[in-house]
Amino acid sequence: MVRFAVLGCGRIGRMHAANLARHPDASLVSVFDIAQAAAAEVAGQLGVRQAASVEEILGDAGVDAVLIATSTDTHVELIIAAARAGKAVLCEKPIDLDMARVIRCWNEIGSLDPTVMIGFNRRFDPSFAALRRRVQEGEIGRVEQVVITSRDPAPPPLAYIKVSGGMFRDMTIHDFDLARHLVGEIVEVSAHGASLIDPGIGEAGDIDAAMVTMRAASGALVHINNSRRCSYGYDQRLEVFGETGMLVAGNRRETSVEAWSAKGTQAADPVLHFFIQRYADAYAAEIAHFVACVQDRTRPSPSFNDGMQALRLADAANESLRTGRSIRITG
Amino acid sequence: MVRFAVLGCGRIGRMHAANLARHPDASLVSVFDIAQAAAAEVAGQLGVRQAASVEEILGDAGVDAVLIATSTDTHVELIIAAARAGKAVLCEKPIDLDMARVIRCWNEIGSLDPTVMIGFNRRFDPSFAALRRRVQEGEIGRVEQVVITSRDPAPPPLAYIKVSGGMFRDMTIHDFDLARHLVGEIVEVSAHGASLIDPGIGEAGDIDAAMVTMRAASGALVHINNSRRCSYGYDQRLEVFGETGMLVAGNRRETSVEAWSAKGTQAADPVLHFFIQRYADAYAAEIAHFVACVQDRTRPSPSFNDGMQALRLADAANESLRTGRSIRITG
Amino acid sequence: MVRFAVLGCGRIGRMHAANLARHPDASLVSVFDIAQAAAAEVAGQLGVRQAASVEEILGDAGVDAVLIATSTDTHVELIIAAARAGKAVLCEKPIDLDMARVIRCWNEIGSLDPTVMIGFNRRFDPSFAALRRRVQEGEIGRVEQVVITSRDPAPPPLAYIKVSGGMFRDMTIHDFDLARHLVGEIVEVSAHGASLIDPGIGEAGDIDAAMVTMRAASGALVHINNSRRCSYGYDQRLEVFGETGMLVAGNRRETSVEAWSAKGTQAADPVLHFFIQRYADAYAAEIAHFVACVQDRTRPSPSFNDGMQALRLADAANESLRTGRSIRITG
Amino acid sequence: MVRFAVLGCGRIGRMHAANLARHPDASLVSVFDIAQAAAAEVAGQLGVRQAASVEEILGDAGVDAVLIATSTDTHVELIIAAARAGKAVLCEKPIDLDMARVIRCWNEIGSLDPTVMIGFNRRFDPSFAALRRRVQEGEIGRVEQVVITSRDPAPPPLAYIKVSGGMFRDMTIHDFDLARHLVGEIVEVSAHGASLIDPGIGEAGDIDAAMVTMRAASGALVHINNSRRCSYGYDQRLEVFGETGMLVAGNRRETSVEAWSAKGTQAADPVLHFFIQRYADAYAAEIAHFVACVQDRTRPSPSFNDGMQALRLADAANESLRTGRSIRITG
Repeated sequence: MVRFAVLGCGRIGRMHAANLARHPDASLVSVFDIAQAAAAEVAGQLGVRQAASVEEILGDAGVDAVLIATSTDTHVELIIAAARAGKAVLCEKPIDLDMARVIRCWNEIGSLDPTVMIGFNRRFDPSFAALRRRVQEGEIGRVEQVVITSRDPAPPPLAYIKVSGGMFRDMTIHDFDLARHLVGEIVEVSAHGASLIDPGIGEAGDIDAAMVTMRAASGALVHINNSRRCSYGYDQRLEVFGETGMLVAGNRRETSVEAWSAKGTQAADPVLHFFIQRYADAYAAEIAHFVACVQDRTRPSPSFNDGMQALRLADAANESLRTGRSIRITG
Repeated sequence: MVRFAVLGCGRIGRMHAANLARHPDASLVSVFDIAQAAAAEVAGQLGVRQAASVEEILGDAGVDAVLIATSTDTHVELIIAAARAGKAVLCEKPIDLDMARVIRCWNEIGSLDPTVMIGFNRRFDPSFAALRRRVQEGEIGRVEQVVITSRDPAPPPLAYIKVSGGMFRDMTIHDFDLARHLVGEIVEVSAHGASLIDPGIGEAGDIDAAMVTMRAASGALVHINNSRRCSYGYDQRLEVFGETGMLVAGNRRETSVEAWSAKGTQAADPVLHFFIQRYADAYAAEIAHFVACVQDRTRPSPSFNDGMQALRLADAANESLRTGRSIRITG
Repeated sequence: MVRFAVLGCGRIGRMHAANLARHPDASLVSVFDIAQAAAAEVAGQLGVRQAASVEEILGDAGVDAVLIATSTDTHVELIIAAARAGKAVLCEKPIDLDMARVIRCWNEIGSLDPTVMIGFNRRFDPSFAALRRRVQEGEIGRVEQVVITSRDPAPPPLAYIKVSGGMFRDMTIHDFDLARHLVGEIVEVSAHGASLIDPGIGEAGDIDAAMVTMRAASGALVHINNSRRCSYGYDQRLEVFGETGMLVAGNRRETSVEAWSAKGTQAADPVLHFFIQRYADAYAAEIAHFVACVQDRTRPSPSFNDGMQALRLADAANESLRTGRSIRITG
Repeated sequence: MVRFAVLGCGRIGRMHAANLARHPDASLVSVFDIAQAAAAEVAGQLGVRQAASVEEILGDAGVDAVLIATSTDTHVELIIAAARAGKAVLCEKPIDLDMARVIRCWNEIGSLDPTVMIGFNRRFDPSFAALRRRVQEGEIGRVEQVVITSRDPAPPPLAYIKVSGGMFRDMTIHDFDLARHLVGEIVEVSAHGASLIDPGIGEAGDIDAAMVTMRAASGALVHINNSRRCSYGYDQRLEVFGETGMLVAGNRRETSVEAWSAKGTQAADPVLHFFIQRYADAYAAEIAHFVACVQDRTRPSPSFNDGMQALRLADAANESLRTGRSIRITG
């Protein structure tokens, strides 16, 4: 049994807390949020303790692992403190928006050989995971081209956009990780972006549509297609093209119902609305993987380094956007 | 080169005439229709002779084969006359609405060993034909169940319904033939029908929706699903279920375009509108098969007997409808 | 909070027990099975009491409802005893294999106005339920034809077949209920069956493939297609054809992955393997409906009468199979 | 009636000749090829004159239009000569591999106001054309992102690769035109390529896999995905994403047959093998458009300028590949 505390009781923290409560080998001990009412609500619903402070949790010998779902700017300090307290850490993406801080974080804790996992949920999506397994089993031979489509149903509030670190570090970072997960290290990044949806996003210095092209050390080419708005739901697709075949993982829908009429045929439902619905299974599998690693004392994946490399690609994409150049990634 | 005359210049006759004109090993010599204007129009368009009578055509040594596309009640006499004149015959379905006349027809010509083919176009549909080939190659093992869906876009005029011989002899006859083509001889027929679409059809003593169940000598069960009206086009599907798999042949559409929006996803075109569009390739392949048989002096298929057996199943379906009993077909 | 006891700790009983344990408004109090080891295991896993007898459970004022998942031959006596003890009852299908016993059961308890629900899970499948909702909202106009496909992945052991009551009462009964759920009362049943899969099934006097045609009081025609074996998984499909359109609910798969290669394109996973996987959501929704009805003191559906009517259709199908006649259902 | 001569009797020339022979408003008068045997064969099959020289054709007052399907290096001189001779010209893509020569070509003939159409067949594909029509009718609002997938079944011989002008001018040029056709003028091009399939292609200085990103003056982003080899056939897809929806045009297959088995479900045919099959309808529609324009004295499209602009994008893609920079296109 792995005993957890959850830091951060917003939408994601709550979902993780509920998944922990359901997992047979995990138990949720306590929760914390600087918004005390949010923490109290979760604690009440799940029948667990509301901690008065992070320090209380980190000092609790009855807590084996912390799940960090607080705002991004607090991740680094919480990871450092938790690692020093000997807790295993599952931290939501991104580690931080500032690479210098990410590097410092690891410098502070690396020698402790901590158990740290970064919450890139898509690796755990059953369809994406099955696709990757088949690729690794050689079903399509050498991977030559990857197309990742990721479009959110609607842009977040402008207030969030302004502190998000920009589209690449906030949203595309999932796709950067998925690309590395599929084809290994990336050596070149080229990015294009535009503000097509909300002029306010452009005025805030950000983009809301993007196309990124990358080259892997393996030679494979990767295309990422992003939009902050998508009329038909949360568009999450993956296409991997290899020498002897192609594997694609499409969207998922609430039901299998299709309509046929004079207006059209085989019309299916809109796709699942957003990440909480689409990646419900993935979030549960992510928790299961982390729990198993803590129990078996094996390294969870995605690792801290995976979190760092995804940020490196986001930074390179921003540099490409600024300079109009293809950016080489150097070890 | 097989030299043809076309008898009957209605919609189907014209289509056949155009296909003959295009076929490299066929030539269209002459056409006839009791409606002289129709024959004149086709003759003019295709640059062929308009015959003054059937006799002129049957007496023409420059005609090898006749394609009969006249009204059903004339088929038997034309087949007899053409066979006696030594012409190969491709006759539109059905041979006749009256089994006694069909039997008499064969009694008159059987000893001549005539080349007679009945125009069941669906056998030549590229999808249905490919499906059957794969079944015969053993891809799904023994065939256990067949589901044939055949729904017309809209009912014909009531005037036609009244002389059509009823839904089973007019429309389902295609499905009876397709069933025999797939699973061999049928030994039992059970039919249900209803007038759901147009009360006038019911008042005329006919049905406009039907479900037929049949048992083959092989043991396979067959379901036929018919409707005289279908909002999304001409619904033509085939499902063959066997011990090691299932093969299905779906509808075809004008384009491959699919629409995704807030209202639905993967919405495709309506299916091809009616038989002229859906079975365009099939009609051309039917002509090609007949031409090849005449050239090679081999037996074309579907044969006169196939036309007779399909009518036998239609008659059995009518008897089942009347009696509420499952009808045994005896050799 | 509705407090439950589960009678029967086989595969289905365990699944229901786990669903009850998860439901926020239900609590599982105790379990019973004549196989004490099975009951002990479930009681241990879920931390609930193992009752020594059915009587102990029915006498327990702390139990509001019983879920009956014992063998079919015990259902009637358990329903009667539970109803007399004032417990709400959720009983697995079928009520019994013998209509006389089913009628007697209701005669014994009807005057108690008991809360009894029969576990026809398919009504609660999200896709079938969404399809039905759209039909009822008028999306396709009047329903004219229904095609229900239900094929099990593999036949049950012969020992089970022999006590199953035959395919119609054991397997097709789900489809009979689904048909009534979609089109209302059925007035005519015609059935065909065959033993195509396992000769032992035929020798046991049963069939392993069936096609049933029914007519509803509304005029709609219904086709049911059953097989005891299906190479590609648990084939569960529904097609409802109406005057202005068609709604279909297809199979569900583990992932959305599709493979493209020289051998074929868009090849998807086999369909979900069997009812525990395919109807996982349906079983949870079924429990939720029953819990809500007990809490709100409303009538759950499917009712005892629904269970009785489905059996009536199964009996009519058997009679049709025996007589080769279409059987009228009289009120 | 538009009277044609076909220059070049290779695979494409023959196909065009056959399409001209079938078109009701076109007549094929003569053909020419420097390989006299090829020309003789086509002339014989179609019953037309084999011209002894290009000059003979251009001097023939009975020829209204020439279809140029010779090798690329001869296009410019033939266009100039034909325009000077007052013939309408339908020239296969590309106009030439060298932009200077293309510009010179127009300088020589522009003042003659010639009728010149460039054979970008994809504009005439029924699915792509229907998709574009719906985009222009506003079905998906403003176009934001376009993804063009174009993968050939197998690379051409190395000997061809060496004179092809490189992948962008030889193969991607179709996609450049399609992009312009959909979103209008392009202002920025960024290209990545790799030699992943045949090392010989890399040694010849060319690439066999490419990803191109472009920005349109409208703001839309465009991704092109190319491969010189595709195991499952000729992969030709189009995805257009807009503010209120997405339209996609998928691949086409020989039949609608799908296979279901223990290995997988809904497995369809490989896609149509290559351009002659996939774009058969498109080539016929292209001819029909040109014939109609010549008859009506309207400007055919794609125009000479369209051919020039597509080449400009190919050149920009090559420059991007060489420099690692995003290339601005200036009027």
